[in-house]
Amino acid sequence: MTRIAVDAMGGDRGPGEIVAGALEAQGDGLTPVLFGPAGLDAQGLELHEAPDVIEMHEKPAEAVRGKPQSSLVAAVRAVAEGTADAVVSAGNTGAVLAAGLLELRRLPGVLRPAIAVPIPARRGPSVLIDAGANADARPEHLLQFATMGAVFAEEILDVANPQVRLLSIGEEREKGNQLTLEAHELLAASDLNFAGNCEGRDLLEGAADVVVTDGFTGNVALKLLEGTIRSLLDALRAEIGATAPGKLGGLLIRPAARRLRHRLDPDTYGGAYLLGLRGLAVVAHGNSSRTAIASAVRLAARGVEHDVVGTLAARLPQRTEAV
Amino acid sequence: MTRIAVDAMGGDRGPGEIVAGALEAQGDGLTPVLFGPAGLDAQGLELHEAPDVIEMHEKPAEAVRGKPQSSLVAAVRAVAEGTADAVVSAGNTGAVLAAGLLELRRLPGVLRPAIAVPIPARRGPSVLIDAGANADARPEHLLQFATMGAVFAEEILDVANPQVRLLSIGEEREKGNQLTLEAHELLAASDLNFAGNCEGRDLLEGAADVVVTDGFTGNVALKLLEGTIRSLLDALRAEIGATAPGKLGGLLIRPAARRLRHRLDPDTYGGAYLLGLRGLAVVAHGNSSRTAIASAVRLAARGVEHDVVGTLAARLPQRTEAV
Repeated sequence: MTRIAVDAMGGDRGPGEIVAGALEAQGDGLTPVLFGPAGLDAQGLELHEAPDVIEMHEKPAEAVRGKPQSSLVAAVRAVAEGTADAVVSAGNTGAVLAAGLLELRRLPGVLRPAIAVPIPARRGPSVLIDAGANADARPEHLLQFATMGAVFAEEILDVANPQVRLLSIGEEREKGNQLTLEAHELLAASDLNFAGNCEGRDLLEGAADVVVTDGFTGNVALKLLEGTIRSLLDALRAEIGATAPGKLGGLLIRPAARRLRHRLDPDTYGGAYLLGLRGLAVVAHGNSSRTAIASAVRLAARGVEHDVVGTLAARLPQRTEAV
Repeated sequence: MTRIAVDAMGGDRGPGEIVAGALEAQGDGLTPVLFGPAGLDAQGLELHEAPDVIEMHEKPAEAVRGKPQSSLVAAVRAVAEGTADAVVSAGNTGAVLAAGLLELRRLPGVLRPAIAVPIPARRGPSVLIDAGANADARPEHLLQFATMGAVFAEEILDVANPQVRLLSIGEEREKGNQLTLEAHELLAASDLNFAGNCEGRDLLEGAADVVVTDGFTGNVALKLLEGTIRSLLDALRAEIGATAPGKLGGLLIRPAARRLRHRLDPDTYGGAYLLGLRGLAVVAHGNSSRTAIASAVRLAARGVEHDVVGTLAARLPQRTEAV
């Protein structure tokens, strides 16, 4: 039985939504375990008392040190203590990272944990890593992110020998900033299936199985992708609604638009892996719906089932020796 | 009569497309002047002979030094020599920048020229700067980019007291990388109308009149925006075409989709300003259509009419003293 610790107090929509999502994911050998204050309506799920709450705006390191009994820290600690197999939080991402570093610690050889997000590209899902854990990164970090992304693609997306590309400002190896120019050399010399640079324009089309970047660029890119999809579909709806034939046409294309929206909806994926720790953590969007939480819990269980952490542990130290 | 030097050999679609675009822009006090090899069909436009061509893949600085008689360098030099008022090229952007630095030189006080691109946001156009001139930048560069972007917004987009935001990974001032954290402080202390950070998700919706960032992030963001719009509209068309009612609906929404596509089409804007030089240069997409070239030529003429270079010259030195 896989046990997934769920931070019931993370997320903008309140604990009711989180509990509903956890409940939805329950079953088939998967047991969500809630962490939250006494008195929380756990809907019959196991509840571990954690009286404190870390808010979205709190400074991660301070909050984690100051609130060891928060739902977020307690849920992460459960993985460290072996009472849960993985943790899911839709709370403060920086705090999940800080709690992970403190309670789970890094895998041997890992320089920095990174956030891996599946992108619903047209040619099939690809992994964007790092999507925001490290605002400033060095070339050797990017090499490790690429390795971790490749393990994610193999184990979770079932891609054999995943192709890796480096997000930059031109496909030629001499195009980029200081960071990507140096990272390109490291990636080219590694035993990864590295296919060179890709550009922002390729991201939704499907640039590669793994797209590697620093956490600043990755976070800007991920939010830009999500925001552009939403803005564009909203703008199209407004244009369609402006005329009577457009409105009728809008009704007729609704199923098609819905299929597309579903494919592109982050809720369908539900969350991102925080990779590089001695335990698996999945971070979900702050405004996650119950569906997104359920997806995140299942994603965490899938990572446990495929032993993503064990695979990373086996693969990473070799890489770092080569740096 | 405003004379715009046009690099006839820049662009992926060949000189015929460039000449057609220049011809389309002619009139109303605007005279395009072509630079290209003898024998080029200039369609009756003035042609200045420039036998060499700089290719897209050439290294900018080397190419510019090695080919002073290329269409690109000759067109830029015409502005320096006063035989043209501004220059348009759809060629190698790095080479336009290198030629601008060599032939036009920087305005006094300017640390680095930057590329300003109008983004067709839903709330009205906003300026993204730097969209790719400087892959690595320092905080004081970002302050100057913001000032140049504000002049662009005032003079070209007719926005009074333009609001400036810094592209980062969270709205709070403590969210960002080392570059944006320091740039935030400089911007907050400046006399610009600085409203704090914005995120990638706001870009197409309309984050601010001016969105400032380094050239690496800006270039990734711009290409991501353009690529996502194209991928998404293509995906929607494919979904719609998959069923009979969808196809009928597709016909009915076609005018609405076309209006939206037109608003978002980079060709409607046509080009980006390269700001910070002692002369005005407009860079257009490599794959510019004739419509895009015509827009770029008109954009250049508008910059001349509003004396963007003179306004920058008057504004920038004060700023740099404050740094």
